[in-house]
Amino acid sequence: MKYSDAGVDISRAEDALARIRDKVRATKRPEVLGDIGAFGGLFRLHGTDTVLVATTDGVGTKLELARMLDRHEGVGTDLVHHCVNDALAMGAEPLFFLDYFSTSKLDPAVFARVVGAMADACRAHGCALLGGETAEMPGMYAPGAYDLAGFLVGAVARDRILDPAGVREGDVLIGLPSNGLHTNGYSLARAIVWKRARSEERDDRAVLDAPLAELRGGTLGDALLATHRCYLAEVRALRGAATVRSIAHLTGGGWEGNLPRALPPGLGAAVDRDSWTVPPLFRLLIEWGGVAQVEAYDTWNMGIGLVAVVARGEDRAALRALPDAIRLGTVERATTERRVRWT
Amino acid sequence: MKYSDAGVDISRAEDALARIRDKVRATKRPEVLGDIGAFGGLFRLHGTDTVLVATTDGVGTKLELARMLDRHEGVGTDLVHHCVNDALAMGAEPLFFLDYFSTSKLDPAVFARVVGAMADACRAHGCALLGGETAEMPGMYAPGAYDLAGFLVGAVARDRILDPAGVREGDVLIGLPSNGLHTNGYSLARAIVWKRARSEERDDRAVLDAPLAELRGGTLGDALLATHRCYLAEVRALRGAATVRSIAHLTGGGWEGNLPRALPPGLGAAVDRDSWTVPPLFRLLIEWGGVAQVEAYDTWNMGIGLVAVVARGEDRAALRALPDAIRLGTVERATTERRVRWT
Repeated sequence: MKYSDAGVDISRAEDALARIRDKVRATKRPEVLGDIGAFGGLFRLHGTDTVLVATTDGVGTKLELARMLDRHEGVGTDLVHHCVNDALAMGAEPLFFLDYFSTSKLDPAVFARVVGAMADACRAHGCALLGGETAEMPGMYAPGAYDLAGFLVGAVARDRILDPAGVREGDVLIGLPSNGLHTNGYSLARAIVWKRARSEERDDRAVLDAPLAELRGGTLGDALLATHRCYLAEVRALRGAATVRSIAHLTGGGWEGNLPRALPPGLGAAVDRDSWTVPPLFRLLIEWGGVAQVEAYDTWNMGIGLVAVVARGEDRAALRALPDAIRLGTVERATTERRVRWT
Repeated sequence: MKYSDAGVDISRAEDALARIRDKVRATKRPEVLGDIGAFGGLFRLHGTDTVLVATTDGVGTKLELARMLDRHEGVGTDLVHHCVNDALAMGAEPLFFLDYFSTSKLDPAVFARVVGAMADACRAHGCALLGGETAEMPGMYAPGAYDLAGFLVGAVARDRILDPAGVREGDVLIGLPSNGLHTNGYSLARAIVWKRARSEERDDRAVLDAPLAELRGGTLGDALLATHRCYLAEVRALRGAATVRSIAHLTGGGWEGNLPRALPPGLGAAVDRDSWTVPPLFRLLIEWGGVAQVEAYDTWNMGIGLVAVVARGEDRAALRALPDAIRLGTVERATTERRVRWT
């Protein structure tokens, strides 16, 4: 199975973005730094050396699983963590967050579970929940369904911005484990699970709730709804211990879709796929779905949620600072169109 | 007909917000000024007298009309204008905007029309389009349907924040005309139009496309899709000419839902309903839907999109600065639970 079989086609999104690029560029103000395609937008404030970093995200169809399993808190937490990580990828610390909650008929109890969890996640990371919008749109969503968008503003001193332009050949790639799929590739994962349920003539819910030996007795529902890990503490520790040049948050588009965003043109990443163990959840999905390896790594994070590019020679210091970090490989000259080369 | 008959119940949203209020308050950082319920959240930046204002909005089910009539540009513009006006209500000028576009299957052409219009609106108001998220969620939306959320950050010098606490008895209410429903009350408006179509045994689309004498030969489709007016130039002119104490942007919840947000506890608004002419679109919807007057003013802006509270004695200067502004009434001591009193 492919991601596009599940109805998600990243090339459509690329086409869509290409069509508006010029119009977006025309809105540039002198305060805007960088260009489209970074993990967050940069806006320099007059009279200070502070640069604001702004990012927006959704949770994707993980929402549908949360609804099915009545586990609404997780997606609220996921959304905050996703946004915090995107800001981290620019070098910023979170300042404040806003949420958009949209549904056909508002269920105050569900809303309170989702947005309450967002507030808890904000508080845990020192981020103010500064506002939100609750939209009730009859007929727009299936009964009980809702969509979420999050918006986060962070700040970074200008000389602390993580800029891929500073990355050099020979720099080291340090990976931090993910908790699971985080918030990407759920349409493919769900399609695989539903296909499995049909082939076994079982109920979708039964497949999600059954303990699986492959997951060490855990259920697929639990594994799929594991919270998007927030790397705030880890990135702080890493920057204290080593020279971090840039960071990639592995989200939609997987490895090839994200790691090159942390590299300058002309450079690529040589990554040793044996440097970490792909978690059982991913192996299960690949097996059940007959997913090609290239497709899997282009869709999911495969067990690594964040990759930091650390200056050559500082990898040991980085690994000492972060007990669960992994040395994945190095930055090299790019020789092919695909910029992540598996070694 | 009532708004709740059309499936939107504002008391549900109030219930929902009440449930998370304490958790949201617990996320407060020292930089956060003000409390929940303002038109935008305020965040003071260290080392400057600049306060950031952040706001998020959607377009509601105006999206469904835009889709039906293949008029996608308008909703992009609407979203930017809605957010700019909310920032204006806090006294801020826009800095940057981000958008969230969510659909089941991305149509790059439609996306480019919607987000291209957002970019144009941003540029027209000197606002950078700093980022966005495009979510493809198979099965979440009906074919062709999409949802939009906008996030805007503006800035205001601390001593220029518009704070309802400064409003005094005897201050004057200055109104600026709206262009129509702007982005609120569309579920009720659509329910009225569909009911009319059924009672006349006509196609929904035919009712939207037919020229109407009541609309001076215009169509209901055009009137309903008129763009949310942006008041940036007007508010700048007004603040240059008079002491503006506070501003209410009349959006979801209509008059009673918004005008009190620009007033301190204990004060109310005495508004002369004859001071302006309710535009034909609203009169038509009221007549077709049999909508009670209180319901209409609690749902729609009724022809006034923004109300500025101007210091007593400065109303003439304000009206001179804004040719289409209207003197609506004055601020008075509140004597009833409802704080907008019609005179």
